[in-house]
Amino acid sequence: MDLCKVKKCTAIMADSTTAQRNGLLLEIASALQSNADFLFEENRKDMENARGLSPAVLSRLKFDRSKLDTVVESVRQVAALPDPVGKVLMREELDDNLFLEKINVPIGVIGMIFEARPDALVQIASLCLKSGNCLVLKGGSEALNTNRALFKVITDVSKDSFLTSSWIELLETRDDVAKMLAAEGFIDLIIPRGSYDFVRYVMKNTTIPVLGHAEGLCSMYIDKEASITKAVDCAVDAKTNAPGTCNTIENLIVHKDIAPSVLPLLSKAFEKAGVKVLGDPECQKIINCLPASEQDWDTEYLALTISIKIVNSIEDAIAFIAEHTSHHTDAIITEDEESKKLFMRKVDSSSVFCNCSTRFADGFRYGLGAEVGISTSKIHARGPVGLEGLMTTKFLVSGNGQKTGSYMGDNPRAFKHRMLDTNGKSEILCGDR
Amino acid sequence: MDLCKVKKCTAIMADSTTAQRNGLLLEIASALQSNADFLFEENRKDMENARGLSPAVLSRLKFDRSKLDTVVESVRQVAALPDPVGKVLMREELDDNLFLEKINVPIGVIGMIFEARPDALVQIASLCLKSGNCLVLKGGSEALNTNRALFKVITDVSKDSFLTSSWIELLETRDDVAKMLAAEGFIDLIIPRGSYDFVRYVMKNTTIPVLGHAEGLCSMYIDKEASITKAVDCAVDAKTNAPGTCNTIENLIVHKDIAPSVLPLLSKAFEKAGVKVLGDPECQKIINCLPASEQDWDTEYLALTISIKIVNSIEDAIAFIAEHTSHHTDAIITEDEESKKLFMRKVDSSSVFCNCSTRFADGFRYGLGAEVGISTSKIHARGPVGLEGLMTTKFLVSGNGQKTGSYMGDNPRAFKHRMLDTNGKSEILCGDR
Repeated sequence: MDLCKVKKCTAIMADSTTAQRNGLLLEIASALQSNADFLFEENRKDMENARGLSPAVLSRLKFDRSKLDTVVESVRQVAALPDPVGKVLMREELDDNLFLEKINVPIGVIGMIFEARPDALVQIASLCLKSGNCLVLKGGSEALNTNRALFKVITDVSKDSFLTSSWIELLETRDDVAKMLAAEGFIDLIIPRGSYDFVRYVMKNTTIPVLGHAEGLCSMYIDKEASITKAVDCAVDAKTNAPGTCNTIENLIVHKDIAPSVLPLLSKAFEKAGVKVLGDPECQKIINCLPASEQDWDTEYLALTISIKIVNSIEDAIAFIAEHTSHHTDAIITEDEESKKLFMRKVDSSSVFCNCSTRFADGFRYGLGAEVGISTSKIHARGPVGLEGLMTTKFLVSGNGQKTGSYMGDNPRAFKHRMLDTNGKSEILCGDR
Repeated sequence: MDLCKVKKCTAIMADSTTAQRNGLLLEIASALQSNADFLFEENRKDMENARGLSPAVLSRLKFDRSKLDTVVESVRQVAALPDPVGKVLMREELDDNLFLEKINVPIGVIGMIFEARPDALVQIASLCLKSGNCLVLKGGSEALNTNRALFKVITDVSKDSFLTSSWIELLETRDDVAKMLAAEGFIDLIIPRGSYDFVRYVMKNTTIPVLGHAEGLCSMYIDKEASITKAVDCAVDAKTNAPGTCNTIENLIVHKDIAPSVLPLLSKAFEKAGVKVLGDPECQKIINCLPASEQDWDTEYLALTISIKIVNSIEDAIAFIAEHTSHHTDAIITEDEESKKLFMRKVDSSSVFCNCSTRFADGFRYGLGAEVGISTSKIHARGPVGLEGLMTTKFLVSGNGQKTGSYMGDNPRAFKHRMLDTNGKSEILCGDR
């Protein structure tokens, strides 16, 4: 593994044009299709070796015609997205002939660690290429042969391009992961995917910044002024639409005044959907359910189980969420504007909803065009992260010989600090490339 | 030290209005003035204890009428800045009656470690209060009495306010610093100020994100197509305007074709300004200077010393910068548009300049209104950081009972994803507060 080579390629990337990067994306899409048989054959080896693993693992590992078609289509969609590189975030006239621009530039080298899901390799590579980043990848070992094959197709196409194949590197062993975590100066951002414990392990063992998705312990609060229909619709969707996902609710908090009318309906709907209901003592007085333990309020079930807590006030609901949330997504169901505002201001989560299912917390549903991940950290990017999560900024200043000394001392020049329109690409870099 | 109390105060902050935060800032400014004698008396104790320390340390430590007036004025200026809290960054109609907003919200609790400079305590506290953040401070031990006095004035005013005094906590011992670095979950971002080694120490010893300013090893490249007047003006300003600062140049890189005409003029100007010049062998052939060692190219002198390197091409200059820069600020002097663009695209620093002094890299000169620090990291904030460096984001979604199930399966509803104007404050939270 030659991380130095990857780091050096960042300068070539930084000088690349939109057309070059999009062109290479389309070539990769075509090459994946024309190498279909090779990819399927390599994947069969992985599937063979993985016999006996759980159906969920096998289903993620499988790389067949349908997965290939989806992934090729997604690469083409990424190519069609607007170029995030060089986007002007701020433009200012500091003084006569002295202009400032703050523009989006690639972060540099992204280190990505992901589960045994071959389609993720292609998705991540296409997002990095689009955003002008170089990439060091480590995939789940069960997908070794498929990952190698996908990597070969991508590097074969890249090696004759403007980039050479050094923009992407595939790591394979556990030792390589340790090297990645120690590669400060060569990798600029690590994005780990996987279990909560794994992400925590990465965070604790590197000085490189980590874009981490810790876990999703989401709650919904049914206020005393809630519409009962909306409450039942949203709670059932938020629990049952895809129970294994991070934006599914685990805790339901119900105001005591509305509990007697809403809980029997919820209980019936949950029963119909096969959801196991646990409740606190107050909840058990109203509906038939098992007792929830203290530990239940902090458990991400990733399954058809829900815990219900009765509270005396919205303030108690907010305090309960502050204690148990993983700061991913929390929702209130209410028709009262003041309660809505209070909840949305005070709940400190990456997404806070009113009167809809928490399952809307998703980059595609937010219209971000592509999803890099969902960040539960507060620094750099928070919540569903699109391509902008792979960008940093650069300040450009263009002058005609100005000295700072002229703006100091006796009789100093004054800055104009006039904000200008940010439309279009960088004027200092002379427009589009 | 009660970090739990500070963390709990973030919910009160999150629910505060612009008027409340600005009002408290103005009260703090007045209280500092009316407690001037108390502050000066406590500062005299620190000055007494610090006898024998260097004049630079004593000058930073001193808190007199002039420092007080400056700091009081700066608190009032911070109060007058636009409120960064609740600023809408994105607004979108996801579907009928389903609206998304991405807004700026405070990060939560900022942990600030700073040198023995009492005015910094007030400056940091005012920026945090303005941006709705709670604050844990640790100042240099030489300023112990002055820091306690300033902290007392601020907490005395705060305790009768909407906030209570729990929003701010002062730490005093080295053990407290260790506790701060271990306080994941209670502190959301650490901002250390001080030496390069100290900032590195903090980064290596905490799992909390760090907004670090590592060091400033800045370069200027004089291209073969440079204007000689601009080159001399900008290089002299960039080296001599304030040699102890991080945006001062340490390395000067000169194209071989222009070296014979520009170096003698530079040499004369540097001599007049008292700058010691070191040069590579090619440079020594043209002007009288001492030899630069390999180590010189990586040295932040923070003094009137400069190293000069002669290169054969702009590509060599860019490669030299890539090897030695700390990614703070680098500049090119050229009249050639292609060289300007190549340099500005390829040099991977937080600020990249053309035809002006590197000393312009500064939050106030950029018109950011206030400067939290200058970040040389690429994640979260890069370059001069204004109040936006103390903000994170929150997605708000407001609906009328929508389920995600309706957008899936057979005959799914389509999202509209219509971008709306982002002017003004959050509509979901019903406008200004």
